[in-house]
Amino acid sequence: MKLGLTETKYLKDSIAVISELVNEATFKVTPQAIELVAMDPANVAMVIFKLLPSCFTEYDVKEKMELAINLNNLKQILRRVKPDDALTLEAEDNKLKITLQGQTRRTFAIPILDTDEKEQKVPDLNFGATIKTNASLITEAIEDADIVGESVSFIVQPDKLMISAEGDLSKAHIDIDKSEITQINVHDMNPLRAKYSIEYLKKMIAGAKLADDVIISFNKDYPLKLDFKTIDKVALSFILAPRVEND
Amino acid sequence: MKLGLTETKYLKDSIAVISELVNEATFKVTPQAIELVAMDPANVAMVIFKLLPSCFTEYDVKEKMELAINLNNLKQILRRVKPDDALTLEAEDNKLKITLQGQTRRTFAIPILDTDEKEQKVPDLNFGATIKTNASLITEAIEDADIVGESVSFIVQPDKLMISAEGDLSKAHIDIDKSEITQINVHDMNPLRAKYSIEYLKKMIAGAKLADDVIISFNKDYPLKLDFKTIDKVALSFILAPRVEND
Amino acid sequence: MKLGLTETKYLKDSIAVISELVNEATFKVTPQAIELVAMDPANVAMVIFKLLPSCFTEYDVKEKMELAINLNNLKQILRRVKPDDALTLEAEDNKLKITLQGQTRRTFAIPILDTDEKEQKVPDLNFGATIKTNASLITEAIEDADIVGESVSFIVQPDKLMISAEGDLSKAHIDIDKSEITQINVHDMNPLRAKYSIEYLKKMIAGAKLADDVIISFNKDYPLKLDFKTIDKVALSFILAPRVEND
Repeated sequence: MKLGLTETKYLKDSIAVISELVNEATFKVTPQAIELVAMDPANVAMVIFKLLPSCFTEYDVKEKMELAINLNNLKQILRRVKPDDALTLEAEDNKLKITLQGQTRRTFAIPILDTDEKEQKVPDLNFGATIKTNASLITEAIEDADIVGESVSFIVQPDKLMISAEGDLSKAHIDIDKSEITQINVHDMNPLRAKYSIEYLKKMIAGAKLADDVIISFNKDYPLKLDFKTIDKVALSFILAPRVEND
Repeated sequence: MKLGLTETKYLKDSIAVISELVNEATFKVTPQAIELVAMDPANVAMVIFKLLPSCFTEYDVKEKMELAINLNNLKQILRRVKPDDALTLEAEDNKLKITLQGQTRRTFAIPILDTDEKEQKVPDLNFGATIKTNASLITEAIEDADIVGESVSFIVQPDKLMISAEGDLSKAHIDIDKSEITQINVHDMNPLRAKYSIEYLKKMIAGAKLADDVIISFNKDYPLKLDFKTIDKVALSFILAPRVEND
Repeated sequence: MKLGLTETKYLKDSIAVISELVNEATFKVTPQAIELVAMDPANVAMVIFKLLPSCFTEYDVKEKMELAINLNNLKQILRRVKPDDALTLEAEDNKLKITLQGQTRRTFAIPILDTDEKEQKVPDLNFGATIKTNASLITEAIEDADIVGESVSFIVQPDKLMISAEGDLSKAHIDIDKSEITQINVHDMNPLRAKYSIEYLKKMIAGAKLADDVIISFNKDYPLKLDFKTIDKVALSFILAPRVEND
């Protein structure tokens, strides 16, 4: 396996975001894509990541392989990438070798881990509402909610998405109206409502580094999914378990 | 009560500064102004704040009311104000409701506290010296003094203000000469001297966010007053008890 | 003794760097230069510093004198220097008096310490390799190495300098090829190798504030020397003891 890339942003930003949720993960490298499906240690959140060959200047993958990696190690190395560096990834002798060629040639090697972890399956979910909007609006709303509480309710009706949090004494409530920026698809006229952890949402919404827009899908007291996509390059999704109302 | 403002800076910066000194405070809202007089918990410093109706785009106050608020809560919400947001304040059901209307509509509610605190009276002080100067000169001088000690002496004579601090071994001394920038009014030819806590002065001088100039008033071993004013908009003053010479 | 300077950068940056390694030090002030030779408290690193009269606008030193100073005190004061300040240093009554003349006149005094420390002698070293290169390349290489380990090996051969670190599981290796930017002088065709503490190197390479280039000298399992020089102004060198291979 040998992979070369010059536009290092997609790999670097994705790993930075994913490593906030998952410590170790197994990348599946195939001729079609680099993929990752992983649960966070508390089993509350799932990460689904796909990086396409069109991100790479060289994509030499003869056969499918699995690479279990400590993501924190990988993140620390990717942080060292400078804008003009060309990056190469190679699997060699149970090591992932990362070469940065710029004014100097810098080579890092991190261990490929043994793992007997069974493959994570992406669950088949049935969403009642899908909202596409500017990721920064959702980032702001989650930061607003973070002032007053630890969990946040998403409530959607055909004309608006509402994000709401309540603390012991204080409240925050954000209305995001349907508009050119915000598309809302719901089947039901009744509002749908579900509650999620702000701590997790803050880590997930960082996917906005990869894409200006986010697609939010959820259902009544049901998991929420966030999708960040750049066509032909990268797709990063998160699934987050709901909090039950008496949390 | 309903108050609307688009130039949110005066309210936001004032609360940020005051909340460093006072945790809970009672605003007096009248048709003429929003006012606050409060002591810090250690009873060393007084804050006197006045925000005028001309800061507001809507100022609907039918009758005088008192609003006891946790200033830290209020500060956290005001931090979320973005430059283009229009801000509305309403008192409703023992809550202060704060609405930020920008690309989305964001509403926060914080409790109006019960308080049996009696009204603070601003003391009638008799100052021997008044200095008007650029607030940044005083900020710098206090930061200089902070390197060597915990308290600082203000010494004034007709031609200059001196700010002086002494640690176990080190000393700092700043001379600010009378000039176009620095106006000095003293009645006595003999230097006046008094000593104050640097920790408090650092919090108070942050009032420079509101006004370029500061008026400093003090007397021999007597309280010091700092005034920050923007005509027709806002006035923020602090009174600080002196340290006795053998502190 | 009275010294005046307007280009305060050389003094300020040097003291900031040196104070990370040495707490108290004795400056030798002569008509020819201000000099300092000091060991760090752990006796692992030596600092050799020289500031030339051409850095000063006034250099009035009648006779040789010694000034023992707490460098942290001095650094804190030099941090308060603003770009337009003229700085004056005077020795007076067992105090070093530092005056900053800008929009105000600010005077600091710190104690001149008693010291019975005997003068440090710069050791006579015999280096097998000398490399002159851009200091930022070495800074980057040390930061790269810092991700994986606590010590770093310098390996030099006629055509390149290699910097290499190994942790429990990860590795970093940087190749800096001979080029117009990187001059390499070695007498032997066999690679020379020695190992040093990354913690110390990070503090020393901060000398790059003073000069774009660094001269690195070392030998097999032998001390390393870093030289930062600005002609006619300042010279700052560090000598660092090697780590033995079984550290």
